[in-house]
Amino acid sequence: MDTIAGYIEKHKERFLDELFGLIRIPSVSADKENGHVMMAACEYIRDNLLKSGADRSEIMLTQGWPIIYAEKIVHTSLPTILVYGHYDVQPPDPLDEWESEPFVPVVRDEKIYARGADDDKGQLFMQLKAFEYLVAEQKLPCNVKFLIEGEEEIGSSAIITFCKQNVRLLSADVILVSDTTILSLNNPTLTVGLRGIAYFEITVTGPKRDLHSGLYGGTIHNPANVLADIISGLIDKDGRITIPGFYDSVKEIDTEERTLLNNVPIDEEALKNNIGISDFFGEKDFSVIDRLGIRPTLDVCGIWGGYINEGAKTILPAKASAKISMRLVPDQDPGEIENSFKSYLLGLNIPGISIAVNFLHGGNAYVVPWHSCEVQAAVMAMEKTLGKKALPVRSGGSIPIVADFEKILGMKVVLLGFGLETDAIHSPNENFPLNNFYKGIETIPWFYHFYTEFKKKM
Amino acid sequence: MDTIAGYIEKHKERFLDELFGLIRIPSVSADKENGHVMMAACEYIRDNLLKSGADRSEIMLTQGWPIIYAEKIVHTSLPTILVYGHYDVQPPDPLDEWESEPFVPVVRDEKIYARGADDDKGQLFMQLKAFEYLVAEQKLPCNVKFLIEGEEEIGSSAIITFCKQNVRLLSADVILVSDTTILSLNNPTLTVGLRGIAYFEITVTGPKRDLHSGLYGGTIHNPANVLADIISGLIDKDGRITIPGFYDSVKEIDTEERTLLNNVPIDEEALKNNIGISDFFGEKDFSVIDRLGIRPTLDVCGIWGGYINEGAKTILPAKASAKISMRLVPDQDPGEIENSFKSYLLGLNIPGISIAVNFLHGGNAYVVPWHSCEVQAAVMAMEKTLGKKALPVRSGGSIPIVADFEKILGMKVVLLGFGLETDAIHSPNENFPLNNFYKGIETIPWFYHFYTEFKKKM
Repeated sequence: MDTIAGYIEKHKERFLDELFGLIRIPSVSADKENGHVMMAACEYIRDNLLKSGADRSEIMLTQGWPIIYAEKIVHTSLPTILVYGHYDVQPPDPLDEWESEPFVPVVRDEKIYARGADDDKGQLFMQLKAFEYLVAEQKLPCNVKFLIEGEEEIGSSAIITFCKQNVRLLSADVILVSDTTILSLNNPTLTVGLRGIAYFEITVTGPKRDLHSGLYGGTIHNPANVLADIISGLIDKDGRITIPGFYDSVKEIDTEERTLLNNVPIDEEALKNNIGISDFFGEKDFSVIDRLGIRPTLDVCGIWGGYINEGAKTILPAKASAKISMRLVPDQDPGEIENSFKSYLLGLNIPGISIAVNFLHGGNAYVVPWHSCEVQAAVMAMEKTLGKKALPVRSGGSIPIVADFEKILGMKVVLLGFGLETDAIHSPNENFPLNNFYKGIETIPWFYHFYTEFKKKM
Repeated sequence: MDTIAGYIEKHKERFLDELFGLIRIPSVSADKENGHVMMAACEYIRDNLLKSGADRSEIMLTQGWPIIYAEKIVHTSLPTILVYGHYDVQPPDPLDEWESEPFVPVVRDEKIYARGADDDKGQLFMQLKAFEYLVAEQKLPCNVKFLIEGEEEIGSSAIITFCKQNVRLLSADVILVSDTTILSLNNPTLTVGLRGIAYFEITVTGPKRDLHSGLYGGTIHNPANVLADIISGLIDKDGRITIPGFYDSVKEIDTEERTLLNNVPIDEEALKNNIGISDFFGEKDFSVIDRLGIRPTLDVCGIWGGYINEGAKTILPAKASAKISMRLVPDQDPGEIENSFKSYLLGLNIPGISIAVNFLHGGNAYVVPWHSCEVQAAVMAMEKTLGKKALPVRSGGSIPIVADFEKILGMKVVLLGFGLETDAIHSPNENFPLNNFYKGIETIPWFYHFYTEFKKKM
């Protein structure tokens, strides 16, 4: 593995060009009309994997957006690593806040700027180029399979069925994913937990049409005011969620692990500066790290109703809606949360008002033990290239499929991510530092190495 | 005046064609780019008044949209009626709920359907055609002046300055306005009070960009959740507005007038059916008529923030906004309400959140005494053409300029409107029954007659 740094140095410009080619394909999965574009992204990755040395690389159609499957089998007696990633990206809105075009990647201040620069095209490409190196230099110590989907940003639903139907094809020893963050290259961290998610859209309907706010104001329940009441009532003044039963399944975390997690040297002042707020706020009696990693949340992701253009229109809107995401922790089940939320809303019984709840998607939280060989192989790989032992982190984000992988395929998932919290994923001006991109490519072959060594000793 | 019905019968098709010509000009005042269209509407009305017999009819430029001034002076010894109306209309959104194009007037089921069919192009045209009749048949008993503005739907600001600068030009004895409703042609009512208004836009800002709801959720105040908290906190569970000082200037109404107002035979079931709600809701201990006429309100007219397109985007929005209208009653002052609201909001001090408040427009409430000669001339005119004595109504809507007219020009305003509550003004499928249009034209000359008779006896 010692030749990896030199290999990167020699090919770094090409690696970047190849990544940029993928980024330029605006594979927004939320846009249902985007079929041609999604297919173009699939073909790009399929071809790249073939050129990098896969024996087999195919686009597999699903009930949703297609999946790319690829493999290189060295010998059936060797361990197999299954690499997972996603080629879909979040919508680029709000467009006017981007400093450069979201789908025209550029390098500024040693960072790649574009939608997908980090999440997940940049990080997925680290895996592809590490694989290319291992094949090119004949150093691949084990078998490898690739499973790359196009619905991660909209709930990973087609891949569930695909996994269930292809358990044998996907059989492996561990799943390797680069779609998470490290604190920094100097203070490496490894994500050992992910929150789950339950995402809803609620619509509050009153009169059958917009009404004049003078001729009717004061006599009916205004759906926009009612929506505000409902949302406001979901969290109390101590930051606790009020839906009955919401916390029932939340697993207590042991004091030792909580201490270890809280040892990560997060610079809270820098974090506040970066996002431009003067103060944090969250659930009473928990630290910022606790609130992100071990506590569930409820947030409005979007809200709309009535007249939202320039000027003053004096109406009572006929309806108002909100998108609400809840981040879940072990062992909250999205289906149970859905039931609790629906019961709560539908039990409100507000005169003249009806409430519709649509469950858009959900996923379970995930944890992998710190002392497992999967995690320790990653810690050793990072120590090799970054010079320091990583600390554990429970990330606030969700990769719903991770929990499902363990359930369906019976393997642990290693989250070897190189993104930074400041990469603005899901936001305008998403970016990914070049250093992180190249360090990722350098570290991944070492994971192959240490993981295979561990397995051989078992 | 006895020839008016015959005159209408003879010219009714032409009256409609002329009105349709005006409706086809989409004079939405909220659209700041709409200058050419607003001017076209002015020219149309100016020319129509000239053709109808005005001695003078001119477009007067202001700091905002232009005003049309016209007059016909019979003799300086005679009383003068100043007719007020507005040529601007509300935006037609939401467009997809219109059954026919908003600016292509059509007659269905004996009603004109179009934006402005009632408010105020249809009602204004009743005044123009009644005037045409009086001139054509040489029955004009007094002098008449017209003052027609283009900013009624956005707060009537330029006309205030115009009135202040043109007190002599506008001198008259009474102002006559057709921009309100009657209960029905069979149960006529006359509006003797209008609510005032204070219209605000508030914007709640948190982080400087949208954030990933997983990576930050639970650690900061989400501006959309905070906006919901703020809105929810503005009204208590009894429907009372909580802004400190909000009710301080509200004038008690005497029991006799309250009883008279509550005698209007409103069909509450029909009203609920028409707007499609199962139950009314409003301030505790007040009737529906009270809540509309004598009590102030607070309503969200629009709310927006974060991701509002299809699918699920998992963000914490950087900001969220709402448009809020308050309907005011005598003697609430919009300026004082603005101060109370701003003090309240800016005093909230929510960690990591800033709140901006923009006062878009305001206007005072208005009342005219039931036993005044102005009101009684209108009651007699309606009795002549509708066969029944009208009951008084305090309307929930606002015509902010009405209170200002009394203040600046020193005249009472008579609100001789023929719209129906079911006309869906400010909503999709705005309409105006043909019968009401023609009965309006028939009634107005009688007002000229009785009012002039009253003044001659004084």
